[in-house]
Amino acid sequence: MSYYRHHVFFCCNQRDNGEPCCNDRGSQKMRDYAKSRVKQLGLAGPGKVRINQAGCLDRCDEGPVLVVYPEEVWYTYVDQEDVDEIIDEHLVNGRVVERLRI
Amino acid sequence: MSYYRHHVFFCCNQRDNGEPCCNDRGSQKMRDYAKSRVKQLGLAGPGKVRINQAGCLDRCDEGPVLVVYPEEVWYTYVDQEDVDEIIDEHLVNGRVVERLRI
Repeated sequence: MSYYRHHVFFCCNQRDNGEPCCNDRGSQKMRDYAKSRVKQLGLAGPGKVRINQAGCLDRCDEGPVLVVYPEEVWYTYVDQEDVDEIIDEHLVNGRVVERLRI
Repeated sequence: MSYYRHHVFFCCNQRDNGEPCCNDRGSQKMRDYAKSRVKQLGLAGPGKVRINQAGCLDRCDEGPVLVVYPEEVWYTYVDQEDVDEIIDEHLVNGRVVERLRI
């Protein structure tokens, strides 16, 4: 049994050397939003969903990125609407959002 | 195919309210050590191993904790010797270290 059914890691890395990084593209804010929305939906907790921030996931050129484990599905996203779609489709209904998959 | 064969997340959360947290038990130092050792062993990179820090994984009472995905194996550890065993057995040889599993 999975400790978390869906364990989501948002890359929230901040680079200071001018190279692309997820946090320059708003990842921390989107992670905070996702965490709050998942809690609001009653999805948060053991056996359900966990939203975490993580250090650099090293897919910077494709960023901002997140990964959902254990199913190891990687996504990119642009805005809150994309994050909502990942929550509503993938985390709630278990359907991969192919248009955002990387 | 997995983007990373083993994607390891060390909880590096630091609490300031006196409650137990992984970083009080040296998780950041152990994560830095693991990242450096995995690199040294030539295991780091796509198709291989990625060592990440993460925010609170919410298993504080069992901490310090880490999780290895996609196989979703959770570990606790006490010292560098334990981390070495996880690297040598699990990340190199694919054998779960039962004595550290939670």
